[in-house]
Amino acid sequence: TAGGLMRTEFISFPASYTVQQVIDEMRAKREEFSDYEVKYVFVTDSVGKLVGVLQMQDLLLADPATPLSRIIIEEVLTVNHRASLDELISFFEDYPLLGVPVLDDEQRLVGVVLRSDVQDAETDRITQEHLETQGIVGGDELRTMPLVLRSRRRLSWLSVNIILNIIAASVIAYYQDVLSSVIALAVFLPIISDMSGCSGNQAVAVSMRELSLGVVRPSEVFRVWWKEVSVGLINGLILGALICLAAWLWQGNIWLGVVAGAALAINTVVAVSIGGTVPLILKGRNVDPALASGPILTTITDMVGFFLALSFAGMLMDKL
Amino acid sequence: TAGGLMRTEFISFPASYTVQQVIDEMRAKREEFSDYEVKYVFVTDSVGKLVGVLQMQDLLLADPATPLSRIIIEEVLTVNHRASLDELISFFEDYPLLGVPVLDDEQRLVGVVLRSDVQDAETDRITQEHLETQGIVGGDELRTMPLVLRSRRRLSWLSVNIILNIIAASVIAYYQDVLSSVIALAVFLPIISDMSGCSGNQAVAVSMRELSLGVVRPSEVFRVWWKEVSVGLINGLILGALICLAAWLWQGNIWLGVVAGAALAINTVVAVSIGGTVPLILKGRNVDPALASGPILTTITDMVGFFLALSFAGMLMDKL
Repeated sequence: TAGGLMRTEFISFPASYTVQQVIDEMRAKREEFSDYEVKYVFVTDSVGKLVGVLQMQDLLLADPATPLSRIIIEEVLTVNHRASLDELISFFEDYPLLGVPVLDDEQRLVGVVLRSDVQDAETDRITQEHLETQGIVGGDELRTMPLVLRSRRRLSWLSVNIILNIIAASVIAYYQDVLSSVIALAVFLPIISDMSGCSGNQAVAVSMRELSLGVVRPSEVFRVWWKEVSVGLINGLILGALICLAAWLWQGNIWLGVVAGAALAINTVVAVSIGGTVPLILKGRNVDPALASGPILTTITDMVGFFLALSFAGMLMDKL
Repeated sequence: TAGGLMRTEFISFPASYTVQQVIDEMRAKREEFSDYEVKYVFVTDSVGKLVGVLQMQDLLLADPATPLSRIIIEEVLTVNHRASLDELISFFEDYPLLGVPVLDDEQRLVGVVLRSDVQDAETDRITQEHLETQGIVGGDELRTMPLVLRSRRRLSWLSVNIILNIIAASVIAYYQDVLSSVIALAVFLPIISDMSGCSGNQAVAVSMRELSLGVVRPSEVFRVWWKEVSVGLINGLILGALICLAAWLWQGNIWLGVVAGAALAINTVVAVSIGGTVPLILKGRNVDPALASGPILTTITDMVGFFLALSFAGMLMDKL
């Protein structure tokens, strides 16, 4: 929040001061002020409410006897101390300012949020999200950290993943008889699993980016789903046709191609539907979408993909 | 580069000017200067070389007749116009400045790079890298873009991936006879493939982050490899033991567990070795590591994982 990111070292003077008084006080506190990053000077009233901002040039060029109230810019852009990082990011996108004053609920000036601090926080968040989608959780990893810590942090994610993998692969165990009759299908199960995972991850990446840009809201699940279905249909049909062709050329049996191709095509639509919407749903429920979208996606698409391929093969058993 | 990111609107005066001349000229050009983001004032000599920088306060507090040469700060931090984004990022990490003057090879002042512009460029790069690791290439995607464009951009990546997948899965085709004798192994092939891919992607994420932080250089491949091997051995043994136990409980045959567990354990070491080092090797050869690391990793680990599981099963056939 703005309250957490703001700096509480700022320069402010009462509106009753003259330019000369400001210059005198600035000269006296020169050492102290030189550490401050932004050179805005704020003007407040008797109870600490912000009434305006001064530009250095105006101070430089005005007559020393002028009261501050005469040269202040009164229309000052401000943010509330509870403003979120997202709100601060879009504020600095809208206005070319180096900093913005932070007001409490009584409109009193309590600090300044700098553009550079907001951007640092944004960079940290994007890096963190990326690491989380790749299974690095519980804080960033550097290779100089102790081996046991690095190993444990990665394992905390891998051990959840192996359980989900076993659940997904149990679909294959259930259809063992079909698979042993059509062993050629074993080649296509990992392809269907991996390709659907990739298609779904593309949809996750687009949703995560749209969420962080603020161009999509968690409530727009249905619109996003529809947008993904149309891409999924096109890409699923093309990829399904490719895999169908590969299977046909390899085994000389078009029905094997139809089974593998249809499973991949349908599962692509399933994968992008899940990948596109799950981040929105998780965000709407305040669960971190970067962390949870991937495992949900791959577990469901693996199960559905294996089920589709093996059940289609079961139906067409006499032709395979 | 600094030359590409810099702003060419900056305020500079000859060292021969007095404070009063500066104030007069600033007053005259007030409208123009008010658009400039940073209020540093630079001082140059007769051929445009940077000789110092002025702080607004000093201008404010000095006697009007003082020549600029008396009040300038002469030790100015600068960057060359060919400085890379990485160099600029680490510059602003080291120094709490809002901007840095950019000099050409003759030490002439040619522009100013702002901290905020460097941070914007860094944020864009991180976002872009993340999208590329997720298979969104050829520019960012928004769901408001035309369907055909969105579909084609995603397909450009998926169509490469499907070829790599077919190559990797062809290992299974080669070992069809083994697999049809030990059909239970079909359940474990996707688990080995997915788990190794995850372990490798964690190593990719750590390497990408260390590269962007500048704490690892492309030449340190051997050190990184060794660091990854140690993590890979621990995590591989633990994950291998888990999968061995699951296989043993399910089929009542410990040898099936040994085959699956050993394949996963060894392939985890292979995966983290590839995942950790490939980004460094690609970066050293000026190939975009974000784009190419993932496909190389998953193709090799899939092939090795399938080969290990199926060849171990072939060796232990009479016990399975």
